[in-house]
Amino acid sequence: MAPPEKPDLKVLLFDAYGTLFDVDSLIAGCDQVFPGRGLEVCRLWRAKQLEYTQLLNMMGRFEDFWQVTSKALVFSCRSLNLECPPEVRDRLLESYFQVDAFSDVAPALEVLSRHYPLAILSNGTPKMLKVAVEHNGLQGFLTQIISASEVNSYKPNLQLYRWACQKLGHGPDGVGVVSANAWDVTGARAFGFWTTWVNRRGAPWEDLGFTPDVTVSSLVDLLPVLGLSL
Amino acid sequence: MAPPEKPDLKVLLFDAYGTLFDVDSLIAGCDQVFPGRGLEVCRLWRAKQLEYTQLLNMMGRFEDFWQVTSKALVFSCRSLNLECPPEVRDRLLESYFQVDAFSDVAPALEVLSRHYPLAILSNGTPKMLKVAVEHNGLQGFLTQIISASEVNSYKPNLQLYRWACQKLGHGPDGVGVVSANAWDVTGARAFGFWTTWVNRRGAPWEDLGFTPDVTVSSLVDLLPVLGLSL
Repeated sequence: MAPPEKPDLKVLLFDAYGTLFDVDSLIAGCDQVFPGRGLEVCRLWRAKQLEYTQLLNMMGRFEDFWQVTSKALVFSCRSLNLECPPEVRDRLLESYFQVDAFSDVAPALEVLSRHYPLAILSNGTPKMLKVAVEHNGLQGFLTQIISASEVNSYKPNLQLYRWACQKLGHGPDGVGVVSANAWDVTGARAFGFWTTWVNRRGAPWEDLGFTPDVTVSSLVDLLPVLGLSL
Repeated sequence: MAPPEKPDLKVLLFDAYGTLFDVDSLIAGCDQVFPGRGLEVCRLWRAKQLEYTQLLNMMGRFEDFWQVTSKALVFSCRSLNLECPPEVRDRLLESYFQVDAFSDVAPALEVLSRHYPLAILSNGTPKMLKVAVEHNGLQGFLTQIISASEVNSYKPNLQLYRWACQKLGHGPDGVGVVSANAWDVTGARAFGFWTTWVNRRGAPWEDLGFTPDVTVSSLVDLLPVLGLSL
C-alpha cells in the first residue's frame, strides 16, 4: 500500500551526473594519467564544471557542456600544476562517455519505467548523455533525454525547467524531479516541481529556503514512496 | 610616464572580500574553535558562501550576505562533522567584522584616492562592509560603499552592475573594476567595465570567454598602469 504522501505524478525527470552517473567513476582514469592525484583532479574538475555553468547562466552566455567540461579540466590541471596537453585532455574528456551508473540505478529504473514515463534533464550535451545512457544500458527505460543545449541555458535557470515541462507535456506539479545535487533540487523545488533528493552519502541538506519533498538514500528507496517495490 | 594603454577612467570600483580583505585572515579564528581544521572550514565556508549567492541569483531570490554567510558556515561545519552551536556560529560570523586588509591595500588606496574617486562594490551587507572598512582604517580613501543588498541581487548579476553605474554617475567604460575573483572580473568585463584582475597567488586565469584588461600581482602594481607611483 502506498504511503499517504504518495504524489500524483505523470512523469519522473532524472538528473544525470551525480544522480544516475557516478562522476567519481572518472577518478581511476584521472589517476592513471596523474598518479596519486586522480581524486584531487576529479573533484576540482567537477566543482569548476558546475561553477562555470552557473557563471555562464548569470552572464546570459552559453558554451555547451563539452566545452565547459574541457575548460574546467584545463583550469583544474593548471591550478594543480599538472601538465595536460590536448591529447591527455581529450582522453580524459572522453571518459565522460564511459561514466558508470550507480549500482542502484538500473534496478530502480526498470521498475519505475513500468509505471511512469522516465526522462533525463541534464546540463550535458545530447551526445554526452546518449552515449553514457547507452554505455550503461539504460536507453530502454527512458522516453526522453532533455539537454540544456536545447535552450542554451543551464540548471537551475527557469527557462530550462519551462522547456522541460513543454517537452514532457506536463506542468511542474505533475513532474517528479529526482536529483542528488542539493542545488538542483532547490532550483527545481523553487520552480514548483515535486522533488526527491538522492542523498547516497548522508550529506547534510543545504538550506536555501526550500527542502525536498522526499529524501532517499538510493533510487531503490524511491520505489516504496511511490507505492512500488523491486 | 603613463604606459600607452592607460585607460580614461573616472572612478575605480573595488571588490571587497578576496580583493581588499583577506578572507584567509579568518582561518586563525576558525582554527581556535576547530583546532587543526581551521583552513578546511574556512575554505569550504568561503566556497559555499559564493555558491549560495550564485544559486540565489539564479532562482531570482535574495537573502542578505550575513544570512548567506551564516548558512554557508552551518553547512560547512555539518559537512565536516563539526559541532557549531549558535554561539560559536555567531562568534565566527562576527570575525567578518575584523577581516584584515591585504598589506598592499592601504598604501595603494592612499595614492589612488588622490587621483580617482574610489568605491567598493560588494556582495557584503552595508554593515559588514562599513565595519570591515573602518577596522582597517580605509574609510578616508573611499567615496562610496555599494552593497548587493541595495538591489537584492548578487554579482555578477547585470542589475547590480547597472545600479553601481547609476550610483557612480558613469557608464561602464568610465569605471575600472578591480577584483581578485576571476568570476567577478569575467562578469564585470562582460558588462563592459574596464577590469583589473588582482592575482596575488599566481593562479591560472579561468577562461569563460573574457580576459581582464590588466592583471597585477598586487594593488600597488596597479599604480604604474595608471601612470602613478607610491
